[in-house]
Amino acid sequence: MAEKATITLLTDFGLKDPYVAEMKAVILSICPDATLVDITHEIPKYDVKMGAYLLDQSVPYFTGRTVHLAVVDPGVGGDRRPIAIESGSAFLVGPDNGLLIPAAEKLGLKHVYQIENLLYLPSKISRTFHGRDIFAPVAGHLARGMSPINLGREISNYRKISFPKPKITSRKITGEVIYIDSFGSIVTNISAKLLDQANVKYGATLKVVWGKIRPKRVKFLENYSLAQTGTLLATVGGGGFMEISTNRADAAKKFKVRRGMKVEVSL
Amino acid sequence: MAEKATITLLTDFGLKDPYVAEMKAVILSICPDATLVDITHEIPKYDVKMGAYLLDQSVPYFTGRTVHLAVVDPGVGGDRRPIAIESGSAFLVGPDNGLLIPAAEKLGLKHVYQIENLLYLPSKISRTFHGRDIFAPVAGHLARGMSPINLGREISNYRKISFPKPKITSRKITGEVIYIDSFGSIVTNISAKLLDQANVKYGATLKVVWGKIRPKRVKFLENYSLAQTGTLLATVGGGGFMEISTNRADAAKKFKVRRGMKVEVSL
Amino acid sequence: MAEKATITLLTDFGLKDPYVAEMKAVILSICPDATLVDITHEIPKYDVKMGAYLLDQSVPYFTGRTVHLAVVDPGVGGDRRPIAIESGSAFLVGPDNGLLIPAAEKLGLKHVYQIENLLYLPSKISRTFHGRDIFAPVAGHLARGMSPINLGREISNYRKISFPKPKITSRKITGEVIYIDSFGSIVTNISAKLLDQANVKYGATLKVVWGKIRPKRVKFLENYSLAQTGTLLATVGGGGFMEISTNRADAAKKFKVRRGMKVEVSL
Repeated sequence: MAEKATITLLTDFGLKDPYVAEMKAVILSICPDATLVDITHEIPKYDVKMGAYLLDQSVPYFTGRTVHLAVVDPGVGGDRRPIAIESGSAFLVGPDNGLLIPAAEKLGLKHVYQIENLLYLPSKISRTFHGRDIFAPVAGHLARGMSPINLGREISNYRKISFPKPKITSRKITGEVIYIDSFGSIVTNISAKLLDQANVKYGATLKVVWGKIRPKRVKFLENYSLAQTGTLLATVGGGGFMEISTNRADAAKKFKVRRGMKVEVSL
Repeated sequence: MAEKATITLLTDFGLKDPYVAEMKAVILSICPDATLVDITHEIPKYDVKMGAYLLDQSVPYFTGRTVHLAVVDPGVGGDRRPIAIESGSAFLVGPDNGLLIPAAEKLGLKHVYQIENLLYLPSKISRTFHGRDIFAPVAGHLARGMSPINLGREISNYRKISFPKPKITSRKITGEVIYIDSFGSIVTNISAKLLDQANVKYGATLKVVWGKIRPKRVKFLENYSLAQTGTLLATVGGGGFMEISTNRADAAKKFKVRRGMKVEVSL
Repeated sequence: MAEKATITLLTDFGLKDPYVAEMKAVILSICPDATLVDITHEIPKYDVKMGAYLLDQSVPYFTGRTVHLAVVDPGVGGDRRPIAIESGSAFLVGPDNGLLIPAAEKLGLKHVYQIENLLYLPSKISRTFHGRDIFAPVAGHLARGMSPINLGREISNYRKISFPKPKITSRKITGEVIYIDSFGSIVTNISAKLLDQANVKYGATLKVVWGKIRPKRVKFLENYSLAQTGTLLATVGGGGFMEISTNRADAAKKFKVRRGMKVEVSL
């Protein structure tokens, strides 16, 4: 009997439909002791890249035996393969469309297996809901202690996606808006480490440009409450990246900032 | 000590209010080992039929010792009775308004009991929240291993509801839109089995009519990704019923399809 | 080894972002056996008072060993202190902004500790996400059985908030709309006990005024279904307070009632 395992779930299914519950039912039928944790089910429909980003953000905090089950899967039932990945002491299960890769690489990707052994799958597999019929049972078996080598052949030609990297020159850092959270914080791909390398200190005033909007002068502060209510600030968010926020207000809505917009920080 | 049990929860309470958490607190105070699984709390308010449909869809996937607690209960505190049902190896607990019946029948309805034994209920029972004060404690006791015969008399005049059945002639199948999911898939009550009996094969072109909208020609395909993005298709959804979808777009919104609309498939 | 503990979570984080899951990951890394129960994550952003109200409503139903983790924290990273409270047999963990106090007082507040011992915290603490980096690990350690005296000094100058109390004269009760739930029920701060003291009996007709809207005559009834569909009624909600509702319709929306409005009940 393996140590009690956690299974996380991340999908674009929402919570209105019974789809997430059906996956959990299948998992518990195989591994009744698993602890189930929802990461989020509100990935915008079919947005594999957003799913990959949020999975990548979350996985480092799960330190015990964990199986990450992720389903953002517009190609379900087609020729995209179902895969399971061994990474560090964790497993990741989902479609071969890049969704799992950034998180798997962050945890230390070891092996990627194509799921093809029908022994671990239900006798009837729908062509439209592999989350329940393929990924959930595999996650349950891995959580129970099954070795992933039983699932199928190891592959190396799995589909990859990656996130844009910021560029740094002596005069500016050029990054991108990578996420907008529910507080309206504008999360960039510019890491605290990069700001440190560029010698940006707390208290500095940054000139920030996004899209075609004329430059904003924002203070780089240690936390939201150091700015006056409604005032724009730059800070380091919980994920370790620069975000542009407004104390107690929705910065992204106010400035009509969308994901993918370029962000320039003048040094 | 009975085997570890799962308790599922389905309500029209939403997740903004603390009502679901209060039910879980009561359950855990009686059965601390129960695994709690939310089916959904986003049933449209008071929509008993929709609750019955989603409960019916979900229950087959829970295979271990399970208690299904469902509360869509506009008649709370009035003369509708609280009931508990033994079905197969599962129990269902909720109001006697039909909500539990389709699921209970699918699992193999054995006995329906009126909940009347105050021994298993808190000393103070509100008249407006039986989910917390009657159904949750009963679910907790059943999960812990109590026999349902302790709850009260067995009844047979419980309230039933059923779902419309499709009609089939030599020329067409006439069904109904029974659910629209969060992807905008238009789920009908026409089962894959019925399509098979009518000799409808993957690749066929179906003529589909709903409401007063003029006929659409849609291909019957094995999965969403076989249609071009934005193109209407018919397929078999995860529940085993024909659904009309659009690859990567919201078919129900685009065609203004609502639940209850008639769907005709010409053969 | 302590008895299996429940950890509840209440935040204004919503469920779109991975923030709640990151907190759960940290908790499970410290206390893998904890049962996690979400109270709600849909507190309006930064609304400490609403968070305090819903926490206060929920806590009495958790009767076993419980740690309540609550984060509505606009002052994160500033000079507001992180605190842990021992109340009855439960603990409460969160920011020192009043959020925890009404619930803690209801459970029987014993000791309030400032969290300052770095031994129980991760080596790297972000300045913008104490929910994950301070409150979650402390909740995990308390759930595991650690004594709160290890966290830091006991304090008495913690920040308090309280809810408005109704006024009663011989002719009327003057209360306030304290919450509007997802059914549109208008929950007041007038308790069933107060109505009883004022000799208000079920079946009575009350004259209710809110804001500047002219008086409504509403019947005080034992449950929603005793009123005709769409008709306004007064009843006692699940929390034990008078609420004004409409049978099967949204009373708050129909009458444009908002939280904080004065409610007068003529006797």
